[in-house]
Formats: sequence, structure tokens, C-alpha cells
Amino acid sequence: MDDAVARARMAEARVGHLGTVAADGRPHVVPCCFVLDGDTIYSAVDAKPKRTTALKRLDNVRHNPAAELVVDHYDDNHWRELWWVRVSGEARVLDAGSERDHALALLKAKYPQYRDEPPPGPVLAVAITHWHAWNGGDFG
Amino acid sequence: MDDAVARARMAEARVGHLGTVAADGRPHVVPCCFVLDGDTIYSAVDAKPKRTTALKRLDNVRHNPAAELVVDHYDDNHWRELWWVRVSGEARVLDAGSERDHALALLKAKYPQYRDEPPPGPVLAVAITHWHAWNGGDFG
Repeated sequence: MDDAVARARMAEARVGHLGTVAADGRPHVVPCCFVLDGDTIYSAVDAKPKRTTALKRLDNVRHNPAAELVVDHYDDNHWRELWWVRVSGEARVLDAGSERDHALALLKAKYPQYRDEPPPGPVLAVAITHWHAWNGGDFG
Repeated sequence: MDDAVARARMAEARVGHLGTVAADGRPHVVPCCFVLDGDTIYSAVDAKPKRTTALKRLDNVRHNPAAELVVDHYDDNHWRELWWVRVSGEARVLDAGSERDHALALLKAKYPQYRDEPPPGPVLAVAITHWHAWNGGDFG
């Protein structure tokens, strides 16, 4: 897959899957909405007290910043057209400040839902260090 | 989400996202086809020499068996109807034998594509130890 295609597919995807690692060495995977901005991924985290999954993600990257996000296309009827694009990088938690404001503006531009209800919590930033892409064939 | 609903959603999903952890402590996330059989997840791995991503998944679980699989529903227009179901457990690699044969039979029953081209490689089995489910609201 061409680099520009991989980048476009990452930018246009409406949902990705974020992987982090807990302090006990176990993987944690959750779907998330996000934006691609240059070589950074931003996603909003709803960290209200009861949102233990969101808090887990934040705890994980504070302990181990390694993160990975994958976007992909699956079609039951066309396995030859499957693809995925994965980015690996280092995550940071933005509790406040201009970079968080910038990220929220981008998230609102991509997702109308965020305009009505701006996410109140921290933003997770992942500085991409590696791109991986794969095209065509089953997901085995 | 009711336990039976969570189980049905996991069983019926056509694709999941599998998280493992590499020897260097970095997360690895890939989409995969799979079947749920009791409290075990099986997925076929195409381990032909050039399939480095498949091999990475096998290397990871041989080093650290902790694995997680998430299935979810995303709809851009109905954020209140989003959900996910995650299972955590311990992974094993089945290179051959009756459990691999059993898993392949289940995979062929769920995915017609596997009937035409049976996966030649190992099967990844994840013995589920924990179920997590979440219903309704954004993915933040």
C-alpha cells in the first residue's frame, strides 16, 4: 500500500482500535474515535469517575507510553479487498492546555457529535513512530 | 449489558480486534476473524514466511500469553447505540492436533471462505478468563 494511501485511510477512518499495555503486562484494546494530525493521533477520553475503561487507558500509558492504533476495512463478501493500517508510537495524556484545545478543535471538525457535547476529559496524544500497512487477503 | 447478550454479540461478530504484547512490552493490535467456542476464542493464523504480522502475533503470545479480543458496533449516526464486548485470557498456539482440527471445523462453519481455502497455519486459542461489556454512548 502506498504511503499516501495509508495516511489517507488513517485520516478518513471514523473509528480505530487502540492498544495499550497495563502495568501487569496485559494488553488492553478498545475502539475509539480519533483524528490524525501530521504524525500525531488524538483521541478524547471520557474520564468521569465511573468510566473505568477510559481511566485504565490513561493509567496504562502513564505507566508504559507504548501505544498502537489500527484502522481497517472488513467485508464478509470480499476478502480480497480487506486492508489495515497500523501506527505505533508513544502516548501522552493532555489534561489541559493549547495542544489539548487544538486536538479538540480537530475532533469537533471531524465528529459533529463532539460539537454538541465537547468531551470534558483529557485527550490522549500518540506521537507516531512507525507506520505499517497491509492490503488484500484474509485477516489470518 | 446482559451476559447472554454479550456472549451472543461476541459469537456473532464477523471480525474482532486482537491485542497482544511483544517481548519489548509494546502493544500489537490486529483485526482477525475468529470463532467463540464455550469460553475459548479460536482464530486461524496464516504463518507463511512472508506473513510477518501473523508471525509477530505468534511470537508475542509464546513470550507473553496474555491476549485480549474486542468486538464492537460503531455507527456514525447513532452514538447512543455503540457497544463493545471484550474478552481477556491466555493464548496458546496450536500447530497441529485434534483441538486445531476442531477449531478449523468451527471456523469453516462460520466463514465460507475457509471452506474453499482451509488455513494452512497454526490456530491461536485464547482461553477466556474475563468478560467485559459496555453499552451506549461515545467511544471516549
